[in-house]
Amino acid sequence: MPEQAGGSVFHRDVPWIYLVTDRRACGGRSFFHTVEAALRGGVNIVQYREKAAGTGQMVEEAQAIHDLCRRYGALFVVNDRIDVAMAVNAPAVHLGQEDMPLAMARRILGADVCIGISASSVEEAIAAEQAGADYVGASAVFTTPTKAEAPGIGLEGLAAICRAISIPVVGIGGLHAGNAAAVVAAGGRGVAVVSAIMSAGDPEQAARGIAAEVARTGSTEASQ
Amino acid sequence: MPEQAGGSVFHRDVPWIYLVTDRRACGGRSFFHTVEAALRGGVNIVQYREKAAGTGQMVEEAQAIHDLCRRYGALFVVNDRIDVAMAVNAPAVHLGQEDMPLAMARRILGADVCIGISASSVEEAIAAEQAGADYVGASAVFTTPTKAEAPGIGLEGLAAICRAISIPVVGIGGLHAGNAAAVVAAGGRGVAVVSAIMSAGDPEQAARGIAAEVARTGSTEASQ
Ligand code: NI
Repeated sequence: MPEQAGGSVFHRDVPWIYLVTDRRACGGRSFFHTVEAALRGGVNIVQYREKAAGTGQMVEEAQAIHDLCRRYGALFVVNDRIDVAMAVNAPAVHLGQEDMPLAMARRILGADVCIGISASSVEEAIAAEQAGADYVGASAVFTTPTKAEAPGIGLEGLAAICRAISIPVVGIGGLHAGNAAAVVAAGGRGVAVVSAIMSAGDPEQAARGIAAEVARTGSTEASQ
Repeated sequence: MPEQAGGSVFHRDVPWIYLVTDRRACGGRSFFHTVEAALRGGVNIVQYREKAAGTGQMVEEAQAIHDLCRRYGALFVVNDRIDVAMAVNAPAVHLGQEDMPLAMARRILGADVCIGISASSVEEAIAAEQAGADYVGASAVFTTPTKAEAPGIGLEGLAAICRAISIPVVGIGGLHAGNAAAVVAAGGRGVAVVSAIMSAGDPEQAARGIAAEVARTGSTEASQ
């Protein structure tokens, strides 16, 4: 993976504090102010995830968040929409199992763009690595109200995925400061959150709290 | 515009019989059978327009319709989604005023992909031509139940757009066999329809009826 593609996060041995955006989770608060507060609090990857807006609006928002990420040295990721990613020269995209197949996305994006893949089983994670994914988002670690239909893989499922592949694994689903340390202890490169930051009373403090928990575990691991 | 990009339609002096897909307009009928029936009836351009499906499903459907178009010698167009267009090597895309800006799309797609732009005024049509659009979709010619909010530009508005620009103009909005001839008489290169074919009792006959009306007018024009 090239240095440009979020080099600081991918190449330095820092845990990932990975925010997935959800405009509706902000309540009445400004979407961009919430994202910027999260970056101030220590988020080092932001994935722009938007399913409802028109493409023109998505491109404008992606550009704004990409600019924010540059300012804070964070990696910018676009969920699903390769067209939006290319329009704003995003260094990374994230694809779910129902999105464009990885090989097709790689052919369009080339080798220099990071591609993350969602996986909810060891099989999907191995397939993603073999198809050339740069990282895996293991989900859902814990079931959340927004994805009540899918059973969580739990910390055991996450640990199994981490053991099965050698690319970085970020856990997502029901994560917050209270269980973030356990995700890293299970082998995760970091934690991804949506509502734990987007819906927090103080998003900056929420991000800071998660980052502190993860850093504490990381140090403990390193000293063992 | 390269020959590959729907050469038969763009370079020969044939009127465009342009189908815009709408899965919901098919009722209980098969979506693909409806599109194929339209092609058998004389449709020579198909625009795949889908707003609700996931990207993976869109890519599969676009591939299937692209294959159908190749079989019938029709031009295949993808609405809005440049990612889907690139995934299936579509020769053309169509962008609305709320979609990705034309210059951005052109930078991503290159010079060899046809780009059509929706315009509902002379100003928008001129801007589209100046920005490098290959054709304009003038809409809505007549107001339709599905776009009740927008007033129609009428045949006068269509004629004004056709006079103002030199790239091809296809009319869309409330068109059917009964008014298709008037669109060509107003200077349109052809007619685009959704429900007049997708919702017709017999889509092949509906397409044939529109094609016959347009061809009749085209011959009259040519002989004057
Ligand atoms: Ni050409």
